[in-house]
Amino acid sequence: LDYQHVQVPFEITLWIMLASLAKIGFHLYNKLPSVVPESCLLIFVGLIMGGIIYGLNDRSPPVMDSDIFFLYLLPPIVLDAGYFMPSRPFFENIGTILLYAVVGTIWNVFGIGFSLYGICQVKAFRLQDVSLLHNLLFGSLIAAVDPVAVLAVFEEIHVNEKLHILVFGESLLNDAVTVVLYKLFRSFCEMPTIKSMDVFAGVGKFFVVGLGGVLVGLSFGFTAAFTTRFTKDIRVIEPLFVFLYSYLSYLTAEMFHLSGIVAIISCAMGMKRYVEANISLKSHTTVKYFMKMWSSVSDTLIFIFLGVSTIGENHEWNWPYICFTVIFCLIWRALGVLVLTFFVNRFHVNTITSKDQFIIAYGGLRGAICFSLVFLLPDFRRKKLFIAATTVVILFTVFIQGMTIRPLVDLLAVKRKRESAPTVGEQIHIRFLDHLLAGIEDISGHWGQYYWKDKLEYFNSKYLQKILLREYDQPKSSIVLLYEKLERKHAIELAQAGQLGHGPAHPSFLYSAFLCSSNDRTVITDQKLEDTPNPDVLDNMQEILARNLYRIRRTGPAYNRHTLPGDSEPTEQAKEILILRHKSL
Amino acid sequence: LDYQHVQVPFEITLWIMLASLAKIGFHLYNKLPSVVPESCLLIFVGLIMGGIIYGLNDRSPPVMDSDIFFLYLLPPIVLDAGYFMPSRPFFENIGTILLYAVVGTIWNVFGIGFSLYGICQVKAFRLQDVSLLHNLLFGSLIAAVDPVAVLAVFEEIHVNEKLHILVFGESLLNDAVTVVLYKLFRSFCEMPTIKSMDVFAGVGKFFVVGLGGVLVGLSFGFTAAFTTRFTKDIRVIEPLFVFLYSYLSYLTAEMFHLSGIVAIISCAMGMKRYVEANISLKSHTTVKYFMKMWSSVSDTLIFIFLGVSTIGENHEWNWPYICFTVIFCLIWRALGVLVLTFFVNRFHVNTITSKDQFIIAYGGLRGAICFSLVFLLPDFRRKKLFIAATTVVILFTVFIQGMTIRPLVDLLAVKRKRESAPTVGEQIHIRFLDHLLAGIEDISGHWGQYYWKDKLEYFNSKYLQKILLREYDQPKSSIVLLYEKLERKHAIELAQAGQLGHGPAHPSFLYSAFLCSSNDRTVITDQKLEDTPNPDVLDNMQEILARNLYRIRRTGPAYNRHTLPGDSEPTEQAKEILILRHKSL
Repeated sequence: LDYQHVQVPFEITLWIMLASLAKIGFHLYNKLPSVVPESCLLIFVGLIMGGIIYGLNDRSPPVMDSDIFFLYLLPPIVLDAGYFMPSRPFFENIGTILLYAVVGTIWNVFGIGFSLYGICQVKAFRLQDVSLLHNLLFGSLIAAVDPVAVLAVFEEIHVNEKLHILVFGESLLNDAVTVVLYKLFRSFCEMPTIKSMDVFAGVGKFFVVGLGGVLVGLSFGFTAAFTTRFTKDIRVIEPLFVFLYSYLSYLTAEMFHLSGIVAIISCAMGMKRYVEANISLKSHTTVKYFMKMWSSVSDTLIFIFLGVSTIGENHEWNWPYICFTVIFCLIWRALGVLVLTFFVNRFHVNTITSKDQFIIAYGGLRGAICFSLVFLLPDFRRKKLFIAATTVVILFTVFIQGMTIRPLVDLLAVKRKRESAPTVGEQIHIRFLDHLLAGIEDISGHWGQYYWKDKLEYFNSKYLQKILLREYDQPKSSIVLLYEKLERKHAIELAQAGQLGHGPAHPSFLYSAFLCSSNDRTVITDQKLEDTPNPDVLDNMQEILARNLYRIRRTGPAYNRHTLPGDSEPTEQAKEILILRHKSL
Repeated sequence: LDYQHVQVPFEITLWIMLASLAKIGFHLYNKLPSVVPESCLLIFVGLIMGGIIYGLNDRSPPVMDSDIFFLYLLPPIVLDAGYFMPSRPFFENIGTILLYAVVGTIWNVFGIGFSLYGICQVKAFRLQDVSLLHNLLFGSLIAAVDPVAVLAVFEEIHVNEKLHILVFGESLLNDAVTVVLYKLFRSFCEMPTIKSMDVFAGVGKFFVVGLGGVLVGLSFGFTAAFTTRFTKDIRVIEPLFVFLYSYLSYLTAEMFHLSGIVAIISCAMGMKRYVEANISLKSHTTVKYFMKMWSSVSDTLIFIFLGVSTIGENHEWNWPYICFTVIFCLIWRALGVLVLTFFVNRFHVNTITSKDQFIIAYGGLRGAICFSLVFLLPDFRRKKLFIAATTVVILFTVFIQGMTIRPLVDLLAVKRKRESAPTVGEQIHIRFLDHLLAGIEDISGHWGQYYWKDKLEYFNSKYLQKILLREYDQPKSSIVLLYEKLERKHAIELAQAGQLGHGPAHPSFLYSAFLCSSNDRTVITDQKLEDTPNPDVLDNMQEILARNLYRIRRTGPAYNRHTLPGDSEPTEQAKEILILRHKSL
């Protein structure tokens, strides 16, 4: 037996296996996951595992290594989140999200830090040795809402899209603030004196860390898109580039002390549309599927490890400090959401209701990021107290808040996500309104989001697409693509229902494709004005539509003898007329 | 800048990126890969990289770590090979493959070992200090044909299936022999005296290592199949189990000093049919695609590292030893193939031609396995000589043989692989003959491969399927599955050609499905005899066929007025007749 030799991969594989089997186990009983969020169940499994290890070895089970967490477990989840981010609601609410993420997090950090410092001054609690800086440092790591925990809970409760993106977007973007504040206070703790210069440098860092992350991410994202231009002959490694470049963007950002989370999200959002156009359909299925699989495994491992790491002798228990931490976390978050939403609502027509505010405040779950950050703290006397307090806050938010949020959403009748996808008609009207608003904004001189979106789209089609897309010479208009996609889907449905050969049974989708074309025509006319007419595309569209419209009329149920068959073969047409005449005789 | 923190994942990602970009680079110029095998190009890139590293640092570049090779790079390639192994030709030629793999490899090991020992006795060469045992040890690592190198070259030259499986199967299965002989001679080298007992134990180990690998692999494979029974509610982690269980089988086998390659191949071959039936179509696309992607990256990395590791100061040059190694490798392989094929041909009707024998002998490429094994040798005086000789043999076989084998295959007009897939008619006849031969073997009492195959199939449908398949209660007959698959494919083709709505344009596939059904009926009748009639399946089939046959006739181009529309709506039928009569008037 040679266990040493294979130990590392063997144990990793076994952990992943355990996590996957646990997942299967929950889903065997359908009732369980509908009551308790999966994250709670996984932490519970982890607690049991930790208990077993502790009982057998009589020493603390291994805690989750912060390096492993930040380098290997977090990136897949964030990549998945960024790649599948619904970009429209995200950019529509970007102002609000940034306000919550930046101002809200700072508010929470200082609120929690200062009030805990106040608690430490009470002599009866015997906490006088915890300095203000240490309390602020603790505040900086406990204040940040955790994307992994939020995703795990919010994916299951199906609240409306705006509410979801507000909480989730905040949890992703507050990483930049957390990184800066955490590192700032950590370095302050080690400095003998703090100059006001350092504080200003810290404020400047916000922008460097956040914007730097965006820049790193976008540059890797565009490089990835550019690379996939050349993979036509080796489709098999196409999916790889999506993962490699995203991961490189994360690592590069971390290397330069920028926000890795922001970088990987920008990378994924930047590359998505170009990569999707360049790679084959099967490659894309692999990318999507594998991303989901990987993030799901990472997520499972994180929660199990969270449970395992809770068991052990790393904790110093101090009732007042821990209880007040939980209370302050709740209070300051609620206050922050109330105050910030008050300002947000003054500038928006589509306001955030008080129910939504409650869910935003209540959905501020803490998770593995806090946990990893607290273990990364330099050793000092009260580190174990901080670890205990962090663990309690995480368990409290994940278990109590995570388990009660679903009943609360039901009770408050919070607006849910619409189940059906928007119809093509709706999409067309939304696009039409976008164009209209962009025009109005341009005329009125108010450079709002529609104006910038329009400019970006222009820049994209004028420069980026030419560089990043392979087949720019013969670009397929989006109407043709949509039509092809619908027809492929329809064909598969027909085949599955065993009805192939009936002709298109849903004239509605042809109608909608036609409607869509009228929308697209505005775009095409636009292009024409810019002296880039594309007769091929138009011909292609007209040919497809003409062919199918004739066929619909022929196979449609309402056979009208007053409308004659259009074109195609005149002999066939003549024959049809002949038969009709014979019949009428 | 904090490079230390991200070094490990960053460098790994960069190496993979380099490998992928190199692959893209070759394929940009279509002519290059058609002349030079990709493996040669990759080694060349590696040599350049190694040269750059050597020039910059002025010390040997890092060599490929044997642990990394055996634990992380080799398994994906072997898993891919096992999962996509064409099982029919493999099992048809299993006897010949095993003969080449076991007897042929032993022949080569001892042939090369003893003749090199003979060379060492020549005083002018100054090699007297290389003992017989060391020569045999060297022979054991240099004799084995490498699956990675063979795959890389044989995938590009498209020889006929039998020839391909003979060389490739040998390269996979000789792992068991190599492992045993290599470890045996290594332990003999360290022992003061060798008892005859140890030699017998060594012979016994062959069976333990080989059969143990098969057992470990099959048990993990069946566990994997059993696990995928329960993944219906969480499709997203289905592909994971295929990878996890295969990898675990490899690691477990390695842990017990069994043949990991044999284990992972048995695991993949054992699980494939059950996993495919249990998991969703998209999961299966992901599994296939990801396996190809991963093995392709591993393969690329191995050849690049091979190139990088060649540069440096690990070599001790001795002209006679190195030249004779190359010569003996060629001679003993050629002799071995000739002698073994002579015996094989005496027992087979379908003989191996002399052209095929030449390609088998010439295709015995050495690769990264030899290279890793030579670095794993314990330190002794002549290790650097062995490294140099191994490097030369690998470069000689990969470059000279790998580059000339394609022209030789053309020159000799070796039978090529048939490009088209076998038609359904052919498949049916093959299956019919299988049943027939199984019956003949049973009657004549000759228990050959057909008899065992039939027994295995019976055992599979009687016991294994019930345990391992999820939907065994309502099994879909293979004819229904085939029909569905064909119709889905056809529908997509139709949609892509923009011809949806024409009705099935290929009556041939319906005809073939019908033919196939007649074949399946024998199986169904069989089941009936075993008191398990399945009226649902039959009804289902009849319904589908009836519906489509009517429709074909209706929409088919040859409209024959003498054959009346079959059934469906009588009113429509009557109307049609009416119109026809009117027309004829």
